[in-house]
Amino acid sequence: MIYHAPLKDIRFALNELAELPAVCSLPGYEDASVELVDAILEEGAKFAENVLAPINKQGDQGARLDGNIVTSAPGFKDAWQQYVEAGWVGLRAPAKFGGQGLPALVALATEEMWCSANLAFSLAPLLTLGAIEALNHHASDELKAVYLPRMSAGEWTGTMNLTEPQAGSDLAQVRTKAQPQGDGTYRISGQKIFITWGEHDMADNIVHLVLARLPDAPAGVKGISLFVVPKFLINADGSLGERNDVRCVSLEHKLGIHGSPTAVMSFGDNGGAVGYLVGEANKGLSYMFTMMNHARLGVGIEGMAVSERAYQAAVAYAHERVQSRAIGSPDLAGVAIIKHPDVRRMLMTMKAQIEAQRALAFYTAAALDRAARHPVPDERARNQALVNFLIPIVKGWNTEQANEITSLAVQVHGGMGYIEETGVAQYYRDARITAIYEGTTGIQALDLIGRKTASENGATARWLLNEVAATAERLKAAGFASLSANLAAAVVEAERCVAFIVDTFAAQPQLAGAGAVPFLKLMGIVLGGWQLGRAALIAKAQSGEDGADVEFLAAKQITARFYGEHLLRQVAGLAAAIVAGADSVLALDDSQF
Amino acid sequence: MIYHAPLKDIRFALNELAELPAVCSLPGYEDASVELVDAILEEGAKFAENVLAPINKQGDQGARLDGNIVTSAPGFKDAWQQYVEAGWVGLRAPAKFGGQGLPALVALATEEMWCSANLAFSLAPLLTLGAIEALNHHASDELKAVYLPRMSAGEWTGTMNLTEPQAGSDLAQVRTKAQPQGDGTYRISGQKIFITWGEHDMADNIVHLVLARLPDAPAGVKGISLFVVPKFLINADGSLGERNDVRCVSLEHKLGIHGSPTAVMSFGDNGGAVGYLVGEANKGLSYMFTMMNHARLGVGIEGMAVSERAYQAAVAYAHERVQSRAIGSPDLAGVAIIKHPDVRRMLMTMKAQIEAQRALAFYTAAALDRAARHPVPDERARNQALVNFLIPIVKGWNTEQANEITSLAVQVHGGMGYIEETGVAQYYRDARITAIYEGTTGIQALDLIGRKTASENGATARWLLNEVAATAERLKAAGFASLSANLAAAVVEAERCVAFIVDTFAAQPQLAGAGAVPFLKLMGIVLGGWQLGRAALIAKAQSGEDGADVEFLAAKQITARFYGEHLLRQVAGLAAAIVAGADSVLALDDSQF
Repeated sequence: MIYHAPLKDIRFALNELAELPAVCSLPGYEDASVELVDAILEEGAKFAENVLAPINKQGDQGARLDGNIVTSAPGFKDAWQQYVEAGWVGLRAPAKFGGQGLPALVALATEEMWCSANLAFSLAPLLTLGAIEALNHHASDELKAVYLPRMSAGEWTGTMNLTEPQAGSDLAQVRTKAQPQGDGTYRISGQKIFITWGEHDMADNIVHLVLARLPDAPAGVKGISLFVVPKFLINADGSLGERNDVRCVSLEHKLGIHGSPTAVMSFGDNGGAVGYLVGEANKGLSYMFTMMNHARLGVGIEGMAVSERAYQAAVAYAHERVQSRAIGSPDLAGVAIIKHPDVRRMLMTMKAQIEAQRALAFYTAAALDRAARHPVPDERARNQALVNFLIPIVKGWNTEQANEITSLAVQVHGGMGYIEETGVAQYYRDARITAIYEGTTGIQALDLIGRKTASENGATARWLLNEVAATAERLKAAGFASLSANLAAAVVEAERCVAFIVDTFAAQPQLAGAGAVPFLKLMGIVLGGWQLGRAALIAKAQSGEDGADVEFLAAKQITARFYGEHLLRQVAGLAAAIVAGADSVLALDDSQF
Repeated sequence: MIYHAPLKDIRFALNELAELPAVCSLPGYEDASVELVDAILEEGAKFAENVLAPINKQGDQGARLDGNIVTSAPGFKDAWQQYVEAGWVGLRAPAKFGGQGLPALVALATEEMWCSANLAFSLAPLLTLGAIEALNHHASDELKAVYLPRMSAGEWTGTMNLTEPQAGSDLAQVRTKAQPQGDGTYRISGQKIFITWGEHDMADNIVHLVLARLPDAPAGVKGISLFVVPKFLINADGSLGERNDVRCVSLEHKLGIHGSPTAVMSFGDNGGAVGYLVGEANKGLSYMFTMMNHARLGVGIEGMAVSERAYQAAVAYAHERVQSRAIGSPDLAGVAIIKHPDVRRMLMTMKAQIEAQRALAFYTAAALDRAARHPVPDERARNQALVNFLIPIVKGWNTEQANEITSLAVQVHGGMGYIEETGVAQYYRDARITAIYEGTTGIQALDLIGRKTASENGATARWLLNEVAATAERLKAAGFASLSANLAAAVVEAERCVAFIVDTFAAQPQLAGAGAVPFLKLMGIVLGGWQLGRAALIAKAQSGEDGADVEFLAAKQITARFYGEHLLRQVAGLAAAIVAGADSVLALDDSQF
């Protein structure tokens, strides 16, 4: 299955909608420029297309566990070596430790390409970057000096060890123990599950970040500390020393992302794994939260990226497959199925949502960069509020729709879609994890209605909806009557829902909770429509310019209209369910299911 | 994974909504009675729960091909033997040939249980019944005498050989050849793909029904004939003779239903497989259409049945899994996740749709029985029109929603849902075929808007919508204000869509086609809501009776309200897309995708 990085749309979303030039002018990002980013994207596209995409299908054969040794899927070790040598690992790692310190916006645009090309592979660098970020923010200078340069170079990879069998999303239940040794080190013992790339043979060392409890720690989430536990201990001279007391005891047999080994990790079977405390004791959870926004945005990118890959496969098949005459045509000869209106409806449904999701994710990434680097404190705060509000939406909406979009790609293939050799079934299986890990959609939605909406009386939600309404006005003036009307109507419905959540969350959280996921989807649809509305305005303005890509800009305007007539029209039904349907969600007794 | 046949709801849908007593009074069905059917359902439930369900997971390991020999999945051969001995194969086969000749309604209720328990297994009897039906309607008495008794007894199984690599849904492209031998037999040669249970070791013989062309046949669908091609030829005394020149050359590696071998069949590699013409030459396609309604209704049942199984797994997990405190509760202790509003929303979404789908499928099956057996010709015609209209909806809607419902079951399981050992991922994979085979949703929808709506000026559609409106009135009078209002509003939207399709189909079929699948879904939602509305009325009336199952009847009324507030509210958005959104589906050039 060939992958073509959609550079035209990535550039449009990056430069026009997420306003890359403004991001490049933020303090600390002065070395970045649209031209540099363009060159990076070109190189990234080649790498994704030529190195990562071709091994995606063989990656589906999975990693192999023998004893405690994991052999990565065929071709992965070599691809990692090339990825490291090309310097991709450190793109957004701090320059101080050998990274390139580029804006999150730029890094996420390249991450889209890795995820489209090979989702299973992409998780190795993603987890490594998350570990780098956590250490960079919270670890001592000594720990940073030991770990960050090697991790930023990709010599060592990183993992996150949070989940335990009894503690899925509820980290208050974490039981893994950390025993202080008096020499500044700790002995870690316990079992962690669902550890992505927890063991493999691609890098020399694996740096596990582990949540555990000190002996005197308070119960619940306030008693969790964060530790570094390397697979191989590090000698004083920086060379690799003894094997630490941590091992992979099994790999999960999963629905998809087979190329990414998901390990059950056992710490301390032989006396305790040596670990080093990151930052202060009992602050592990808040340290994890530091990188959660980035990780969740990353998973939102993953969902959209797998959708993009599946869309490309569907388009290629629809051009190539000849089947049945054109509807209403007297000519009995078969036509390419892209001529059939229902196939076209499926492709438009995929395309419109992917473009909206890309735009919204990049917009959010730009806000993340502003929140971190804007010179004006108020602007940092305003952007942080935006990021906080948008990230559960990007994570939840992009990934839920990835299930639908990859399913449509299977459907476009008909019977061939159900045959694994065709390749599109893999995207369907791979995509399914994205709405689950890094917090299920239900957890994103609860975060959205509680900490991100009710707790601030809907301020950010309403600010965003005012922006959407203003865009609807501009669309009207520019002649986009249908899109403008659909967008304006959706804003009214969304505002009703925000009011309902603000009004009920404190006193009747069950009622608000019943509509949490529908609210998340509704906001995804509205804000995605907003981005396509902005895109349509820009496309129209640009299409008169010299050298304009008229076909691309025309498609953008049509796609936005389609989105309004098909996606935005779902909003009223969702709003009704949220505002008037909570009682019936909750009315049955447990025993009546 | 335990399966409990939902007998309470099956009986309610059968007896109250599909009016089984009236079906049992049709000529030819006098031997059937509610009591007999009840006993059959009890036995069927035990068989499904104790024999078929326990081997479903091991069936996922798949059948094995060595040379041309297929070994069925572990346990399947033995289960088939038990299935045959218990007499399940012939439940709706004609009594004249050893079957029990029961109504389709009764047979489909048992088929739901087979499909829930083990979808891959259930396809063997389903295909056999389809072949029995085709032969019984169209074959000569000689062919019937040879094949039907052994097939009705389950000694031999049947297959349908339609698809060829170049001819997926477009049977006009069929190229397989049939050469008359002058002795009344034919030599068949060609390759067929996607042949369900095309080769296996469960039965003594396999009876292939094959579409092929005679040498002088006209081009297109008017030149296709139907042949019987047995795996083993039959001697004059009825014993099995020589191996015929037909063999399985490979098995597909599929996304799901691994227990069902999907074969590539090669006919005539050594001179031609001996075949016997069924009925008249060049009428093969119309013969296939005879059994298409039954087969498509069967696949609609499959979709609902896999959804039911997935729902049961989700409910069990939601009761058992303790995770996080209750929202808004000061008590920090974790609770079973069924207490969380979003989990409840997911379970309600599954439950409400499954019950609506079961009711609509059974209602359709009863119409199928009336269309075949009603003594009054007008009633037969009226019911045939109903069946024709409803079947693409039941097939398309039940199976499209099966993708969503099984996905929700995965989601309820969180990370565990992505691990194959948990079992729920298998339902997600298995379900995915149902919206594809026996005609994709796109094909069902085109059939619905064309042959079933536009060609009769929307008569049946409007008749049904009038019934729905009348139910909405009755609901209002009975105090179901919310459901009544939602149903009535949905009828108005549905009527707009029927008018749009009737008005545009002839002159602008592309416009109507762009909204075909949304229209199919819309009608599914409206008619499912109608059935739940009828159910709510009956449940309310019955709940005052002595010995009433008050909990079940109360749940039914709440479930109907939920359906109104959540599912029926989607109708307006779909209608808007159908009526006002067709242009934007079609506006891009092929090259702009």
